[in-house]
Amino acid sequence: MKKLIIASTSTLHGGNYLEYILPELTHFFEGKKSLLFIPYARPGGISHDEYTAKVREAFSQIGMSVSGLHEYGNLIEAIKSAEAIFTGGGNTFLLVSQLYKFKVMDVLAETVKSGTPYLGSSAGSNITGLTMQTTNDMPIIYPPDFRTLGLIPFNLNPHYLDADLQSKHMGETRETRIKEFHQFNSIPVLGLREGSWLEVKGETIILKGDLSARLFRQGKEAEELAAGSDVSLIGR
Amino acid sequence: MKKLIIASTSTLHGGNYLEYILPELTHFFEGKKSLLFIPYARPGGISHDEYTAKVREAFSQIGMSVSGLHEYGNLIEAIKSAEAIFTGGGNTFLLVSQLYKFKVMDVLAETVKSGTPYLGSSAGSNITGLTMQTTNDMPIIYPPDFRTLGLIPFNLNPHYLDADLQSKHMGETRETRIKEFHQFNSIPVLGLREGSWLEVKGETIILKGDLSARLFRQGKEAEELAAGSDVSLIGR
Repeated sequence: MKKLIIASTSTLHGGNYLEYILPELTHFFEGKKSLLFIPYARPGGISHDEYTAKVREAFSQIGMSVSGLHEYGNLIEAIKSAEAIFTGGGNTFLLVSQLYKFKVMDVLAETVKSGTPYLGSSAGSNITGLTMQTTNDMPIIYPPDFRTLGLIPFNLNPHYLDADLQSKHMGETRETRIKEFHQFNSIPVLGLREGSWLEVKGETIILKGDLSARLFRQGKEAEELAAGSDVSLIGR
Repeated sequence: MKKLIIASTSTLHGGNYLEYILPELTHFFEGKKSLLFIPYARPGGISHDEYTAKVREAFSQIGMSVSGLHEYGNLIEAIKSAEAIFTGGGNTFLLVSQLYKFKVMDVLAETVKSGTPYLGSSAGSNITGLTMQTTNDMPIIYPPDFRTLGLIPFNLNPHYLDADLQSKHMGETRETRIKEFHQFNSIPVLGLREGSWLEVKGETIILKGDLSARLFRQGKEAEELAAGSDVSLIGR
């Protein structure tokens, strides 16, 4: 059975890395001793080793050991034999480019579909959707495709941000950007605010955390979904 | 001689479309009666006709007639024979995709290089750089290439926004995003704040408007350039 936690962000303002979600992760990864970390998104250009060390420190608090995918010679085998997988945030264009370059996009999708528990945050959450087209990231590298893991039947916008009505900035709001996506694409988009996550168990998807999420569908008004909502039917 | 105005934004907060820059445009387009408008970026999914009508209204104030590139059968001929060209803002991924689809990227670059005055705003400014990789836009459509017109020897980040130090949002700041770009690319990036524009005359590029701009170079500290600065040497 598919098991995922898909988090908007790794870190809340004023908190430590993964701190707000560690209690949930203790439960989610129960019985798992080791975690395979996919560091390719490299936020701010941090190295794979540095990023993996940061994750190792966080998971040591719940008694799990961490290895980085970059440490392996046979990446496909590393993914297939992982007890649990975590893809961290950073730049989604970079992450997707690397997953294609190393030919692990398909095996990652298959492995998670067959039941290996998966945690994503930010860019690592973005790729659980059908495409990466509702990322907030800058296109710093040209990926061979925008299609991603397709572990949920819609797209995500992590770090979803409401328009600042006091702002004098004339750049597009997040909502405007997602509406532009729907001029050309019919895939629903769920805007996940920081502190929210999706819990996926098989075909059931529940919105967790204390905040509502904002659902955008082509040709429809945007809609607020309360914390705790069953969002399994979006995109089906 | 190359002649361009490359504006961060079309509109300032509280102002009308192009209002803040119309006095400059009167001077820039002196002697030109007609303008070819490239509406492909379609902000918010507005139609080509609607977008062209909006531009027509603005330019009627300075006595110029406007036609949309989408109205022509022979796009290459339309570009080559234009008295003046304006590419409006919207989504850069869409704009670049359309320019490649209609095979007009090269002829547009050549035409502007040979002296047809060019105005860009936002996405229409982004494409004057070497690549579109420092756009703020969402990848709503997959373009065949990230390379753009290369009319200036660096990249732009229009609508440049300083970090909000009061914000509790954990998404990347604009500066962080541009630094991520420089992990993989050596092209300098000029962050143009709303109300700023570049005036290009031949190989001379001057920062105009009242605000400073922020220059990012690979491996160097970001730098503020005062309004009025000669920025011709960036990227050379």
